[in-house]
Amino acid sequence: MEELTSVHNQHVKNWKKLQTKKFRRQRGEYLLDGWHLVNEAVKAGILLRQLIGTADQLTAHRELVDRAAEAYVVTPEIMQHITETVTPQGIAAIVDLPDAHRVPANIQGAWLLLDRVQDPGNVGTMVRTADAAGFAGVVVGNRSADLFGPKVVRSMQGSQFHLTLLEGDLHKWVQDFKRIGAPVYGTQLNPAAQNFRKVHPGPTFALIMGNEGQGMAADLLAETTTNLYIPMRGDAESLNVAVSAGILMFQLNQELD
Amino acid sequence: MEELTSVHNQHVKNWKKLQTKKFRRQRGEYLLDGWHLVNEAVKAGILLRQLIGTADQLTAHRELVDRAAEAYVVTPEIMQHITETVTPQGIAAIVDLPDAHRVPANIQGAWLLLDRVQDPGNVGTMVRTADAAGFAGVVVGNRSADLFGPKVVRSMQGSQFHLTLLEGDLHKWVQDFKRIGAPVYGTQLNPAAQNFRKVHPGPTFALIMGNEGQGMAADLLAETTTNLYIPMRGDAESLNVAVSAGILMFQLNQELD
Repeated sequence: MEELTSVHNQHVKNWKKLQTKKFRRQRGEYLLDGWHLVNEAVKAGILLRQLIGTADQLTAHRELVDRAAEAYVVTPEIMQHITETVTPQGIAAIVDLPDAHRVPANIQGAWLLLDRVQDPGNVGTMVRTADAAGFAGVVVGNRSADLFGPKVVRSMQGSQFHLTLLEGDLHKWVQDFKRIGAPVYGTQLNPAAQNFRKVHPGPTFALIMGNEGQGMAADLLAETTTNLYIPMRGDAESLNVAVSAGILMFQLNQELD
Repeated sequence: MEELTSVHNQHVKNWKKLQTKKFRRQRGEYLLDGWHLVNEAVKAGILLRQLIGTADQLTAHRELVDRAAEAYVVTPEIMQHITETVTPQGIAAIVDLPDAHRVPANIQGAWLLLDRVQDPGNVGTMVRTADAAGFAGVVVGNRSADLFGPKVVRSMQGSQFHLTLLEGDLHKWVQDFKRIGAPVYGTQLNPAAQNFRKVHPGPTFALIMGNEGQGMAADLLAETTTNLYIPMRGDAESLNVAVSAGILMFQLNQELD
């Protein structure tokens, strides 16, 4: 195990730079911060390319060190520097970025499509909720928050190891669903859309959630099978997008009951 | 209209101090930041004790100045100082804190009770969702985030003007609901609890959400009528508390359909 004490060390600089999307793409890697995420990766059989820990943590968990390709002992200051966490747990790992552009051979199950959802916390919470609702995957369109940014990864809480996460052209995805006869549900803050409780999809369908302020893009709304609406009382104007997504996902995907 | 240019002015100092719970209690006031909240207050017939705006904004909205008890022209720097917003809209108002300890003459409708929910964004989002779901009110127990802190107020998006917000002893509230024969639903991450889709309350009931990490307090769980569980797929361990609350509130309160 190599010991690192300076934030100017090249490894440390690289780990820090993984906070940017550009560098994550370039390296094909991202960082997991904290025990929960590292344990979830191990449970999922993901290779820990680099295990990074304070002396305390690595000494107490030798078995984890043996499973990692490389291990580095770092100071608490370095840990704070690379994780931007106020009180880091003293453990982190670098793992491979999954190929976000692989195309599934055939589409099955429930999928969540995100159209320009910008808040990383919202994106991560929706992935976590999709996981809990038994969804097969999440596809983010071009202008959504990056799936492997630090805040998204924190909010996902390891759900990236349970379902398929992809990036892609949502218009193409909508066409793919429609081609196999599976419904695509858009969401629209408009009582002219269909009450979400009135639709009962089969096991394969897509649900699209839109931007926090503007909702879904008009051209995408026009391509869906049906657009859904959550009835609200008069004074409330809208719901948080992650809350709406949760209500819709657990309504549409009731196979878990 | 008085013009203020220094952050050391006593008014400015007081507005800044309204970010603390202690000072809000002492003054009986809190701050609304931005057009949406100020407009919601006016729509609800709430008196604007002090209207605070940049010269641009107040000049463009003379009608609002006439409705406020006092008005102050401030610099963009002062606005940023008192709101802690990166790009403030240049309008804010001081309004009365509602009496959070008033006791309703009789309990009616759906109520959300929060047991030690600590994240201000979660508390605000749950109030906003309760509003949209047609709930009558929200009661926070002793150790939850304060209802009128800046982050909660931002997340509520004006819902405080649409439903009743109270603080209180949740044990007493549970007894009050049970006394009138209305069900009290606790929430528990435990498949031994009841599937949330299987209960069908009448118009009056209480739903309790617990702390982000630990859930509801055991003694409170023991006092409820029934504890509810949202079935999740195996790998997901939990849902964000605000997402769970949204799923439960829209399931239990279906009168809006």
